[in-house]
Amino acid sequence: MKAICGIDVGGTTIKIGLFDEEMNLLEKYAIKTTENIFKDVADSLKDKNYEILSYGVGVPGPVVDNVVDCPNANLKNVNVKEELKKYVHNDNIFVGNDANMAALAEAKCGAGKGYKSCATITIGTGIGCGIVVDGKILNGDFGAGGEIGHIKVTDEGQCGCGNIGCLETTCASKGIARIASKSDRLRGLSTKDIVDMAREGDEEAFKLIDSVCYYLAYAASIMACVVNPSAIIFGGGISNGGAIIIDNIQKHFDKIAFKNVKNTKILKASAGNDAGIIGAAYLTKC
Amino acid sequence: MKAICGIDVGGTTIKIGLFDEEMNLLEKYAIKTTENIFKDVADSLKDKNYEILSYGVGVPGPVVDNVVDCPNANLKNVNVKEELKKYVHNDNIFVGNDANMAALAEAKCGAGKGYKSCATITIGTGIGCGIVVDGKILNGDFGAGGEIGHIKVTDEGQCGCGNIGCLETTCASKGIARIASKSDRLRGLSTKDIVDMAREGDEEAFKLIDSVCYYLAYAASIMACVVNPSAIIFGGGISNGGAIIIDNIQKHFDKIAFKNVKNTKILKASAGNDAGIIGAAYLTKC
Repeated sequence: MKAICGIDVGGTTIKIGLFDEEMNLLEKYAIKTTENIFKDVADSLKDKNYEILSYGVGVPGPVVDNVVDCPNANLKNVNVKEELKKYVHNDNIFVGNDANMAALAEAKCGAGKGYKSCATITIGTGIGCGIVVDGKILNGDFGAGGEIGHIKVTDEGQCGCGNIGCLETTCASKGIARIASKSDRLRGLSTKDIVDMAREGDEEAFKLIDSVCYYLAYAASIMACVVNPSAIIFGGGISNGGAIIIDNIQKHFDKIAFKNVKNTKILKASAGNDAGIIGAAYLTKC
Repeated sequence: MKAICGIDVGGTTIKIGLFDEEMNLLEKYAIKTTENIFKDVADSLKDKNYEILSYGVGVPGPVVDNVVDCPNANLKNVNVKEELKKYVHNDNIFVGNDANMAALAEAKCGAGKGYKSCATITIGTGIGCGIVVDGKILNGDFGAGGEIGHIKVTDEGQCGCGNIGCLETTCASKGIARIASKSDRLRGLSTKDIVDMAREGDEEAFKLIDSVCYYLAYAASIMACVVNPSAIIFGGGISNGGAIIIDNIQKHFDKIAFKNVKNTKILKASAGNDAGIIGAAYLTKC
């Protein structure tokens, strides 16, 4: 059977999805990430009965001309297309950054479906973001398009990138833990715990969450002025807190955004856990 | 003779340029802006001996699907293409925002020539900005692409848009005058005077100019993280102060920008006073 293969390379597992030509998911599975990423992927596909038309690969780190540079994930200046090609003997290989793959999934079949352009902010240990304009990823000349996790928003919080006050030092899970650690009551609690307390009316927890939502809204107001997409979508991390989070981001966005971009929709991601493989598969059609 | 017509509609004058098919300027002139913008343009071209192939029109205000909304310039929800077509009887009419036209001129034949993507920040009474990605303008779904003049950067300065602390309340000419008005020594001086004093070593003038350069660098660092162009180009206003300004923006950019975007070039605009008509003419080829 003919299939499109979407591959989502993570630090611990590699997710693989097979899709038909109408992009319906036929099968998905995961393998462990080892030092032989591309051989392992090819081996895992060998005993499956597909005629694979094309491969889309999402990898962590910036991607330029199929080359990814992410030393943490054993991908230091690796030409992903050339490496995978060695094992699958197919030239139809497309490579992108994982945050961009999640954004592509949202744009094609998630919360951003039907909008001309949209941006997806994915919150995790860090903050990833992908921008899709007219169906295509805004990759940036050096692969850093959508890297809003490293916009400076405060004067505190040491970021892994070396700078102080990047968005992710306040709004990613590590950042929220950093701020919570200043409070005797909130220290050591998970983001989920703090969001739950805020929802139940705990003043200190709400103040922390409200501040995080303010900075996410600020980042959205910037995206809206620079790229002016129809929708800005939040996924992962604190955004899983549900309506209280999205509504609170919207409240701050309404206050600080430029009047000409106030109609930007603030939405919760909906492509789900398979966004990485879905986006990678769609990349083959961009 | 065959020609491409580039039209730059301003509040007081309309600049018109005729270009050959290799985009060499054949002739340029200006007419006064009246209430009959499109009839006047067509009339001014009647006694010229050109076979005009296409028209590019730059207008102030956001443009979506050829419709501009700029009440201040007598262009309230006007379909520029339809209006001009009534008088020139030609369907090849392309319409864009004036800051985007300046950016297109820089990208095609100015400081941004040869780069895959570039952004041009034009400083005047306000701050305009245009982003050109792979030769095409990033217009935004509602025409507000590149509206970085309205990014919030401080907690002071009432902006014409209704918000407080927009970039243009600090870095545009009115913003610099606003800050200077707090000082007995600098009050009432022009931006040029203050830049000249800073260059000659006046400490207070330098402090003001340095702060303006910081916020321009901050805006550039944001653009670099969102769009990641190869070059960010500054034109107009304080950027005319020459090397002291560009060097100072670069100094701050080097400090605050994310490491993956530090190789972004910070450049002075070079397309000159005809950028508006040049960009408009190039728009017909985008």
